[in-house]
Amino acid sequence: MDITILSIFPRMFQALNESLIGKAQEKELVNIDVVDFRAFTTNKQNHVDDAPYGGGAGMLLQAQPIYDAMDYVEKKKPGKKRVVLLDPAGKTFNTAMARDFAQEDQLVFICGHYEGFDERVKDLVTDEVSIGDYILTGGELPTMSMIDATLRFVPGVLGNSFSAEEESFSNGLLEYPQYSRPADFCGKKVPEVLTSGDHEKIRLWRLTQALKKTLERRPDLLEGADLTDEEKKLLHKIRQNN
Amino acid sequence: MDITILSIFPRMFQALNESLIGKAQEKELVNIDVVDFRAFTTNKQNHVDDAPYGGGAGMLLQAQPIYDAMDYVEKKKPGKKRVVLLDPAGKTFNTAMARDFAQEDQLVFICGHYEGFDERVKDLVTDEVSIGDYILTGGELPTMSMIDATLRFVPGVLGNSFSAEEESFSNGLLEYPQYSRPADFCGKKVPEVLTSGDHEKIRLWRLTQALKKTLERRPDLLEGADLTDEEKKLLHKIRQNN
Repeated sequence: MDITILSIFPRMFQALNESLIGKAQEKELVNIDVVDFRAFTTNKQNHVDDAPYGGGAGMLLQAQPIYDAMDYVEKKKPGKKRVVLLDPAGKTFNTAMARDFAQEDQLVFICGHYEGFDERVKDLVTDEVSIGDYILTGGELPTMSMIDATLRFVPGVLGNSFSAEEESFSNGLLEYPQYSRPADFCGKKVPEVLTSGDHEKIRLWRLTQALKKTLERRPDLLEGADLTDEEKKLLHKIRQNN
Repeated sequence: MDITILSIFPRMFQALNESLIGKAQEKELVNIDVVDFRAFTTNKQNHVDDAPYGGGAGMLLQAQPIYDAMDYVEKKKPGKKRVVLLDPAGKTFNTAMARDFAQEDQLVFICGHYEGFDERVKDLVTDEVSIGDYILTGGELPTMSMIDATLRFVPGVLGNSFSAEEESFSNGLLEYPQYSRPADFCGKKVPEVLTSGDHEKIRLWRLTQALKKTLERRPDLLEGADLTDEEKKLLHKIRQNN
């Protein structure tokens, strides 16, 4: 997979050299380039922003440097691209989108900044994506989050290929509680079933806990979930006992 | 405001020295410390993780190093703390939560990693927060996003104090389209009203666009929005014309 990031804060992406994304780059499972679009300004002051037409507070990123940076990327890396722009009005990023992005050969992320960007930048993009109902100074941090979430679905990136599928949301449910050593930590004990060695009992306990937690905290996830017959029966039992 | 981050990838937080958060630190509006809880392990190998009780793929962060790191933070910085743990089952982070966090004197973020953490870590925290319906390798990137979103509401952090209030979600609506120079960019023109100089017309156009976009893309936001009489009337008109 090849990823290009358009940003005026290229140094922020040093964070991508750590942890999972750092390892994925070392293993050459992904190539990540950061293009500073400030280099593409045509004014003497290297300004990338200007006041909005019609007035108002703050400055907008102008279309020209971003268009020219995209031309440069297109020449350097021809071919079909998924071009992602962070926008609060976009489709909310989720696991399904991460899985979808992971199928692409080329991803481009355009990081906005200041008060926003010239609306005409949107003509360059294939996906307007929202990271959630909150506002950030720039697209850099959420872009890194999207890259992390996406790379988890690229084969070979996670050491254990089952891990991405076993976690919260991957089966439509929140995850059951987990415990590691010691069994008694300052008087806080691990649930007995987990040290019983009875695998079937453990499986049932975990599934029940995941269903209970999802029902209690995110009932909306259950509506969309593709539940097995066993899960449906357990859920019915949980609902009766409530 | 004082922020402490517990993480085993402290170098990722260099990204906080850039842009808005970097400036807020320079202005001493916020102090940010990163505590590497790997320094608090009691085993010879400095492991922070262990296998889960009951079996399963992956490793869990153990309770002990995180508990001991929190004791250290408590001694160094006594006083009331909001302690935030990223968890997919938590309350979804949004602008209201950012505004709420911005009122605190001390925020602590615990960054999970690997397949998750020992459930007993949750006894240390005041807020379990989800960043959205997607899974990340670690809490570092979403923690930085939450800090950015929060600091925007700390007085003095944004150059223009009105900016945070004017953006998407702040008034319950998505933002209207914005344009900056040139008025004609490669044949793509700015809407005429914005260059008309008629401030009242511009205000109405923007409000109408914001309402239209919100109705089209995020009708759920309108249900929760505290609309003015003018906004209600405009919305009624938009609905009639659809």
